[in-house]
Amino acid sequence: MLPSYAQALEMILAQSLTFDTEWINIEDCVGKILAENIATDRDYPPFNRAAMDGIATHSSFCEAYSDLHISETIFAGQAATRSLNAGECYRIMTGAPVPPSADIVIKIEDIKIENGKAFLNAQNNIKPFQHIAKQGEDFKKDEIAIHKNALINYGEIAVLASLGKKSIKVYKNPKVAIVSTGNEVKNIDEDISETQIRDSNSHVIASFFKGQGINPTHRTHVADEPAEIEATLKKLIEGNEITVISGGVSAGEADFIPSILFKLGVKNTFHKAAIRPGKPVWFGTLPHGGVVFALPGNPLSVQVACRIFIKPFLQKCFGLSYGPDFYLPLGPERLQKVALDEFIPVKIASLDNKSFLQPVSFNGSGDISATLYSSGIILHRADTPKLEKGSQVAYYQW
Amino acid sequence: MLPSYAQALEMILAQSLTFDTEWINIEDCVGKILAENIATDRDYPPFNRAAMDGIATHSSFCEAYSDLHISETIFAGQAATRSLNAGECYRIMTGAPVPPSADIVIKIEDIKIENGKAFLNAQNNIKPFQHIAKQGEDFKKDEIAIHKNALINYGEIAVLASLGKKSIKVYKNPKVAIVSTGNEVKNIDEDISETQIRDSNSHVIASFFKGQGINPTHRTHVADEPAEIEATLKKLIEGNEITVISGGVSAGEADFIPSILFKLGVKNTFHKAAIRPGKPVWFGTLPHGGVVFALPGNPLSVQVACRIFIKPFLQKCFGLSYGPDFYLPLGPERLQKVALDEFIPVKIASLDNKSFLQPVSFNGSGDISATLYSSGIILHRADTPKLEKGSQVAYYQW
Repeated sequence: MLPSYAQALEMILAQSLTFDTEWINIEDCVGKILAENIATDRDYPPFNRAAMDGIATHSSFCEAYSDLHISETIFAGQAATRSLNAGECYRIMTGAPVPPSADIVIKIEDIKIENGKAFLNAQNNIKPFQHIAKQGEDFKKDEIAIHKNALINYGEIAVLASLGKKSIKVYKNPKVAIVSTGNEVKNIDEDISETQIRDSNSHVIASFFKGQGINPTHRTHVADEPAEIEATLKKLIEGNEITVISGGVSAGEADFIPSILFKLGVKNTFHKAAIRPGKPVWFGTLPHGGVVFALPGNPLSVQVACRIFIKPFLQKCFGLSYGPDFYLPLGPERLQKVALDEFIPVKIASLDNKSFLQPVSFNGSGDISATLYSSGIILHRADTPKLEKGSQVAYYQW
Repeated sequence: MLPSYAQALEMILAQSLTFDTEWINIEDCVGKILAENIATDRDYPPFNRAAMDGIATHSSFCEAYSDLHISETIFAGQAATRSLNAGECYRIMTGAPVPPSADIVIKIEDIKIENGKAFLNAQNNIKPFQHIAKQGEDFKKDEIAIHKNALINYGEIAVLASLGKKSIKVYKNPKVAIVSTGNEVKNIDEDISETQIRDSNSHVIASFFKGQGINPTHRTHVADEPAEIEATLKKLIEGNEITVISGGVSAGEADFIPSILFKLGVKNTFHKAAIRPGKPVWFGTLPHGGVVFALPGNPLSVQVACRIFIKPFLQKCFGLSYGPDFYLPLGPERLQKVALDEFIPVKIASLDNKSFLQPVSFNGSGDISATLYSSGIILHRADTPKLEKGSQVAYYQW
């Protein structure tokens, strides 16, 4: 019996690799995975920070006085020269440190300033530490602000920059080689005959990796000539951690890939899975630790395999979580077409503030336009003859 | 009365720019926006294509014969040398052209091949054109396969490569300059005093643009010195289509940005919006067609403004749709904190195959860690005092 999607994925993830680390500039690290814990150098905020433009004073003065003498103005980046005496306040700007003798900020819109004095409004509802971001409330000194294996997005950049991390330790990308096969396939800038097609798979796979921030080291096409395939694969699997092949893994007489990979010492983990599209998928490992994904050559099979097998593999290697991105209700009901784990291209549609998943129509896994206008795929599991309209389904964004 | 989020956004979108076009290599175009319609050079599939490995024959022969003589083998990329006679079939491989004298493919698993003959299985349920992808079923010749203004993802790459498009006409990125201001702010590799902080905003904004595939031309910091700000901004707004400034737009005495922009001939569209965070946001246009976004300096305000104002502006300029990515139910109920359009960082959580939006906790818009572990934001509209648990809310992915 062929492995289900879940079983095939589990076998792939069990072979996850450990990637090296490298130091890169903060300007280049969005989308990278942090390879160290990031600890704070001081409290954040580093001082009691005014969160509004206005005055800073002590809450007790507000009951005793109707106007306060402005002792000095504190701009952001400056420190006060002296403590407040009773009946005094500081004029203070957003971002400036609130000195210890003050415990509140009153915003400029709520007071009147005239002749060096701030006139309070009796309606002001004074609460201790209002409009003050307290020292250390975001992070304490030496606290771990961001944990290892975090995916770096804008929020992480805000913290890394605030902490003065100009150079960031991240996981290095794996070396990836891409090979498309097939005698009918020509490079996209070559002349083609009526019976030939152009190589889209190597471009799709390369684009997939670029979408993950990884530039493949090689992207090439080879004809269905065993000697040529063997020579090409030998070189590429030795020099790369991940080799992705398209075509040549099915039941045809020119499907040489499994036997050549065997000859090259690639140990097969599984061949074929109970999925559609992409049933003939082949996965194996190398003694030195590399892996080989050999995908069937249909365009939809390639795109789906990248999302459901290679992406989770990369996520596991980088220490990220994997699986469906989220669940949404399915727009129309869907009847199972075949008792396999089926993956169907969908787009997210919204109506009356509610979103649902809408399958896009296509003509089978060979359709070059199958995923146009789709944003991802859903899984229709083999054990579910019918997905009801509105039922929650697992969505995998491309 | 201050404009609502929807009103402020409408004013910004009304100033959308037209970007130039450029030709780029297919290997570099994921994430780019197509600036031309892409028409097909021939039918797709270009011939009746075998979708399985097996034999191709005429459906009428299957009733008349229990075995068929194999006249020749057609590999992918080859053409048959002659038509079938009665009682004959072709051995055929996936991807090969099915000649006109055949109208079905029977897969290899359903037949037995021996001594140059294919033995049919009586149980075979023959349907005309089974396992054949018909010529032109995906696209007809000269059909528009992908329309202008499509965002190029893997599915579009599959089509562009199949059609032999090595060079693609896309919209050129706008020139973008980023300026952070504030005397309390130092570059991330400088020494800082107890009352100073490091420049995170220019890095966050630059990362935001890089996430959109745009490398800013300038990223710089200036102190709150009017002459220095004016000189820097004069140069940058002249040389860039989009200038983004952080800090200096609020009610403080060192908030010089609006008056300097006025002096430089930037026409203000609006200053302040009824939103939180980011209320003091300032937007204006230049006579030559550029725009200036001046954002308040709090880290969360900057990140939110990038997502809710700058991203839709770019989407409009590129001819893409904009707005929330989708709607999901809110995990816990939420009471309005202030009668403004509030944006709250959230993450998507899933439980029992159902997803919901979970607000992440933070300490106000000055919290450098406000968006850690969030995947986007939700909008809690000013006219909604309470969002019920499980109610559908608009989600904006970072």
